Amino acid sequence: MPDKKIMLREDDIPSDWYNIIPDLPFDLPPATSPSTGYPIGPHDLTDLFPLELAKQELDKERRTTRIPEQVRAIYRLWRPTPLFRAERFEEALDTPARIYYKYEGISPSGSHELNTAVAQAFYCKQEGVERITTGTGAGEWGIALAMACKFFQIKCKVYMVRLSYERKPYGRIMMDLWDAEVVPSPSSPSATGKQAAGEATVDTNLGVAISEAASEALGDADTKYALGSVLNHVVLHQTVIGLEARKQMDMVKQYPDIVIGCVGGGSNFAGLVFPFISDSLKKKRSRFIAAEPAEVPSLTGGTYSYDYADVTGVMPMLKMHTLGHDFIPPPIRAAAMRYHGMSPVVSALYDNKVIEAVAYRQEDVLDAAILFTHSEGIVPAPESAYAIKAVVEEALRCKSAGKSMVILFALNAHGYFDLEAYQEHLAQKKG
Amino acid sequence: MPDKKIMLREDDIPSDWYNIIPDLPFDLPPATSPSTGYPIGPHDLTDLFPLELAKQELDKERRTTRIPEQVRAIYRLWRPTPLFRAERFEEALDTPARIYYKYEGISPSGSHELNTAVAQAFYCKQEGVERITTGTGAGEWGIALAMACKFFQIKCKVYMVRLSYERKPYGRIMMDLWDAEVVPSPSSPSATGKQAAGEATVDTNLGVAISEAASEALGDADTKYALGSVLNHVVLHQTVIGLEARKQMDMVKQYPDIVIGCVGGGSNFAGLVFPFISDSLKKKRSRFIAAEPAEVPSLTGGTYSYDYADVTGVMPMLKMHTLGHDFIPPPIRAAAMRYHGMSPVVSALYDNKVIEAVAYRQEDVLDAAILFTHSEGIVPAPESAYAIKAVVEEALRCKSAGKSMVILFALNAHGYFDLEAYQEHLAQKKG
Repeated sequence: MPDKKIMLREDDIPSDWYNIIPDLPFDLPPATSPSTGYPIGPHDLTDLFPLELAKQELDKERRTTRIPEQVRAIYRLWRPTPLFRAERFEEALDTPARIYYKYEGISPSGSHELNTAVAQAFYCKQEGVERITTGTGAGEWGIALAMACKFFQIKCKVYMVRLSYERKPYGRIMMDLWDAEVVPSPSSPSATGKQAAGEATVDTNLGVAISEAASEALGDADTKYALGSVLNHVVLHQTVIGLEARKQMDMVKQYPDIVIGCVGGGSNFAGLVFPFISDSLKKKRSRFIAAEPAEVPSLTGGTYSYDYADVTGVMPMLKMHTLGHDFIPPPIRAAAMRYHGMSPVVSALYDNKVIEAVAYRQEDVLDAAILFTHSEGIVPAPESAYAIKAVVEEALRCKSAGKSMVILFALNAHGYFDLEAYQEHLAQKKG
Repeated sequence: MPDKKIMLREDDIPSDWYNIIPDLPFDLPPATSPSTGYPIGPHDLTDLFPLELAKQELDKERRTTRIPEQVRAIYRLWRPTPLFRAERFEEALDTPARIYYKYEGISPSGSHELNTAVAQAFYCKQEGVERITTGTGAGEWGIALAMACKFFQIKCKVYMVRLSYERKPYGRIMMDLWDAEVVPSPSSPSATGKQAAGEATVDTNLGVAISEAASEALGDADTKYALGSVLNHVVLHQTVIGLEARKQMDMVKQYPDIVIGCVGGGSNFAGLVFPFISDSLKKKRSRFIAAEPAEVPSLTGGTYSYDYADVTGVMPMLKMHTLGHDFIPPPIRAAAMRYHGMSPVVSALYDNKVIEAVAYRQEDVLDAAILFTHSEGIVPAPESAYAIKAVVEEALRCKSAGKSMVILFALNAHGYFDLEAYQEHLAQKKG
């Protein structure tokens, strides 16, 4: 019987992150200054980020960036992550497809977000930063950053989207446990900026939390800001996922016909698919599918244009697929996907038709997630459920066509900090 | 750098469970009938359990029992579990001790309990059982059994100790997600039996939940009862933990001087230590330490005598360390440790001085657990925190003595379904 879990050794943790930008067959539109409209340089970012991250953010030259030994030492707490063959899920779907998933929920923070949190905290520490602020939607990013800050002995303050703060107590407790200061966002009516002032539903908006956290960092020389997705340096750090997965697929002598991930800001999707896109750019071999909420359809329903990354325009402007920085997202449970924009690189790849995108409704993805759970045991985060729904669709297509294909997807987080999402869903189904 | 995680391959999942009873250097006092007082035979148990489990329960002859292929196939979802070297925890304690932990929280149910739940559900299915009832204290056992029943398509009904039902919603949601019926226990005033009738604090008592679940199984030919700890067949199934750990210690050419586990009913402790005790019985090499709550001290404060396993005397009588079946436990957070008795084999080993026992208070063990979390990332279940406290004590003793020893402990469950325990603890410390 072939192994269900394809495991690497700790020596196989990648020694370098992969920067896709030099390999892109098109020019990536630059980030610009919200005040001047001109492209920014690294030093325009150092009020927000440590210099090394600012350089990584704008690096168009180096295909690889060395992972510092201190970061790899922390990665060893949970990396390499397992690649699972989803045999029982295949059986449940009665599909000839071979389905594999790369499971990042095994990290102690419960999601892929710790990959970049550790790197960001490390570079901050290197440059003498004493405190990091951030905004979190689902709480997963806040947990990851709180943990990473504790590892490197940096103070951490998290602005948590108020709706999540109120209905996801476990995220809050996890951040408390790692000694982070957690405040609900908006923290005051004035903090939300003019666009959002007076809006009743602004408590769903990650853009506001980002504005609050970034503004606080700008006002204090010893404090930097950290973002959990969207930006190039974040995506860079997440490529450990795909670099490992490629080795693991090699070990079982398989190559994915289809690679799937959910997208909120785009980082876990990018982390898995970029190393495979690198292969495809040389010789096209795989399809890449980004799965997003129909309720917040940045790729499938947004425009590709320059927009603010946050609500009040503190951050650089990015060319991306966006619903507009003043978009007020509905209160879907997948809180990490309630962001108006999308990683500029993911957006450009979509605009250039290198990747595809699909959008699903919450009730459908949670049904798919429960089928997965009953087969494989692991409870996915509500965000990951979007990827699973796309896998189901492709697997059933294989069945109709009587065609065996290899599907690889990112199971980027477990759902154990957000079981209320399933509770609500089950209650709705019962009646 | 030596690997932090010592990993086995799926082929290394044990092919047999290890039955310690034939190896014991003393006779194990038999289970007896509550009505006649005579030792029972397998057929006295078949109203409650499938015949194969009844046989395993009373087996004094066979040192090994073959693990059915269908059970090993499910084990492959998460087994073999990793053995971690706790390097960062050693550093935090500044100890010369080398600390290893076998992590069972990686199972999809979040604890070691799935090891026996899968086996029990399988044997029930083999014998045509349609429904399984059980009682759960912390909820971890209920989750494990709900999941195992779903895998083998058996109905599952869980009586959950009312206090946990009310303050541990995540356990309930997990059971719902696997389609188990969950009811709080006591489910009615009459259900608690004469001993407990009218007691206000009976909502903490696992013995009552066991009585309710077992009584229901006795009244229905198609329904069997399942217990998550204490009994010999449960302990048998848990030996996969120690059998794997012994191989993993071999891989790094280490042998534990001290082996530590927390004890409620005794199954996770037994599962880890029995294979090592088997070595020690031939040539004494290790110390074995069972860590229990000072608030529910079955080993360190109970008597070694025949007692009922439940409150109303539906189950066989067992010779064990017990606080008395009418003991009303205080509402400590480690709900799986609020049981009045202890595995008869663990009790006999303690009485024969093969193992030691220590008792700690809740606030001290949670402090130790937080220190562990900050070092290693994983949040332990409140139950596992007792083992961690014992590890801290031994590691600090090594430090005082300037002596390097190898300490191995069972991290039997994660705490992600009971973060409220940490929340309360942090609030108490602050306030």
